[in-house]
Amino acid sequence: MARALQLARHGLYTTHPNPRVGCVIVRDGARVGEGWHARAGEPHAEIHALRAAGARARGAVAYVTLEPCSHHGRTPPCSDALIEAGVARVVAAMQDPNPQVAGQGLARLAAAGVETACGLMAREARALNPGFISRMERARPWVRVKSAMSLDGRTAMASGESQWITGEAARADVQRWRAQADAVMTGRGTVLADDPSLNVRLSAATLAFEGEVRQPLRVVLDTHLRTSPDARLFAAPGKVLVLCADTSADARRAALQTRGAEVCAVTAHAQGLDLRAVLHALAAREINEVHVEAGATLSGALIAAGLADELVLYIAPSLLGDTGRGLFTLPGLEHLQDRVELELRDVRRVGRDWRIVAGPPPRA
Amino acid sequence: MARALQLARHGLYTTHPNPRVGCVIVRDGARVGEGWHARAGEPHAEIHALRAAGARARGAVAYVTLEPCSHHGRTPPCSDALIEAGVARVVAAMQDPNPQVAGQGLARLAAAGVETACGLMAREARALNPGFISRMERARPWVRVKSAMSLDGRTAMASGESQWITGEAARADVQRWRAQADAVMTGRGTVLADDPSLNVRLSAATLAFEGEVRQPLRVVLDTHLRTSPDARLFAAPGKVLVLCADTSADARRAALQTRGAEVCAVTAHAQGLDLRAVLHALAAREINEVHVEAGATLSGALIAAGLADELVLYIAPSLLGDTGRGLFTLPGLEHLQDRVELELRDVRRVGRDWRIVAGPPPRA
Repeated sequence: MARALQLARHGLYTTHPNPRVGCVIVRDGARVGEGWHARAGEPHAEIHALRAAGARARGAVAYVTLEPCSHHGRTPPCSDALIEAGVARVVAAMQDPNPQVAGQGLARLAAAGVETACGLMAREARALNPGFISRMERARPWVRVKSAMSLDGRTAMASGESQWITGEAARADVQRWRAQADAVMTGRGTVLADDPSLNVRLSAATLAFEGEVRQPLRVVLDTHLRTSPDARLFAAPGKVLVLCADTSADARRAALQTRGAEVCAVTAHAQGLDLRAVLHALAAREINEVHVEAGATLSGALIAAGLADELVLYIAPSLLGDTGRGLFTLPGLEHLQDRVELELRDVRRVGRDWRIVAGPPPRA
Repeated sequence: MARALQLARHGLYTTHPNPRVGCVIVRDGARVGEGWHARAGEPHAEIHALRAAGARARGAVAYVTLEPCSHHGRTPPCSDALIEAGVARVVAAMQDPNPQVAGQGLARLAAAGVETACGLMAREARALNPGFISRMERARPWVRVKSAMSLDGRTAMASGESQWITGEAARADVQRWRAQADAVMTGRGTVLADDPSLNVRLSAATLAFEGEVRQPLRVVLDTHLRTSPDARLFAAPGKVLVLCADTSADARRAALQTRGAEVCAVTAHAQGLDLRAVLHALAAREINEVHVEAGATLSGALIAAGLADELVLYIAPSLLGDTGRGLFTLPGLEHLQDRVELELRDVRRVGRDWRIVAGPPPRA
């Protein structure tokens, strides 16, 4: 199963909107077939592994990181293929959270006399597909909030001056997170202040896969459609979606559409767009993982609403002093007992900077 | 030498104001004597090692983490003892920065026909005694600034509410830094806001040495002598030194003296006490390492003045939001190019928190 998980990771940057899945077929203690899912519309991991195994699949054990599918999607069901190949036993790391599968794949196998087991390395398998699982289980994407700060927790000087707080290695690392995401989300304020492109500028070779680099959908939250059509965002390759409260401002909408952007309205309230509505809208577009690169307001609002599943925080070895700008605006947080508790999931060096991955602690 | 450095560390909490020193005597590839310096007034490392070696010291090699002394201090010179014992070769990790020694110990050995070498594991040997070396070379102590913050760089809520940001393990770790220091320094603001005791509350057993725990001198910078004589600081065991601009405020001075504190004046300017003068005054009292637990103002002023040699920063896995109080006030820092550049020297987990040790980068 460890090998199957490793294979699944080959699809890290490409399987969207499908989950990353790996499969190993073992017969008499030897690996006779391996496969992973590469792209939607292409064969699933099991099919690649069965093809590699050929006749040796008969009587073999298939290890797969996600329950084999039971439904006809873009490809025929994998459970049928496993049955036809005469596989004796199927070990899945986890059930498919897709309500169209949800145990039916394993049930179909069992009904056909194939021995089944589920749960081996389930935690690792879930970690492969936080976005897909989140979309299936919660009808919203997995939200990762990226930020960069000085050692004293400042993202910029009081004046707003902020370029190059972190080093080159950290910036390359951010590119990988973007490449892994289905959407990169920001706020209108960041577009105005930093004018970022927010696209992926790494090659497939750097990301260690074959084929074209998929550009994530770039999403701008812009309640009143005030983003300039001249923003760099629109010039860079890939699609842009601008979410606003109201699309009736014809001229502004048309100007953005002329630049190739899609403009949609979502529910809003006095403080701005309803973030849950934003995430539901993205899930409806089969967005699994959202990578947020925004300012203190939007990032803070996601955290305060309990919608940030992961924080990726780069810490530069410098001090900007306590007049610098803060990391997250958390409205209503006045007492220490109300602080946002996190767990630190990973801390590592990235070039001359450090990267902390944190998130809400597991519920008790 | 690695073993000698290890031995020297036994004196981490006790040698003050002397340096930590270890010594290993090797004859025919076997360690025949080991020793370390434990306390001022007691024998130096070399003497302990020579006693253990006895007659086997003749013709042996002595590895010592600091050049053997050549002067009569509280004990007779170690270089003479090594000569008398017939040691054939002395390898020192570094020269003694004490101007009373400064190469004379090795010269004395060489003059007596003992082979000498110096510089083996010098970097590690210097790291044992940053305070002693700083006092000898710069006439000021090594200054370590401790702070604790949330993941978003806040030390307290806007209201000042701040207790228990970090966990128990981090607080125990702070006790070790205090125990290692000769002085614990704070500002009048911290005494007023938090009323800390600032003493060492770990046992010698916990710190892994024998004997009494030495309480570091607690130093309060209080320009106008406004610290309350009722502060907890004065009730806790150990000495307190209050530094102010002017000791002529008789009643306030007398009130603090009644509580057992020593009150001294140092040079001051409009912004408060002259921090260089403060550090020189402490060096004159044979203070090697100063551990600073203060607020954003004093800590920031030490950093801004280039007087902080090391930052020890605990990061708690929580967010307080951008209205919380900042870490360091760095007056005059307005542009990114003026930011304080640091190098991260050590990053590690301490219980549920993380600890970063940083400091000024080595000069190019």
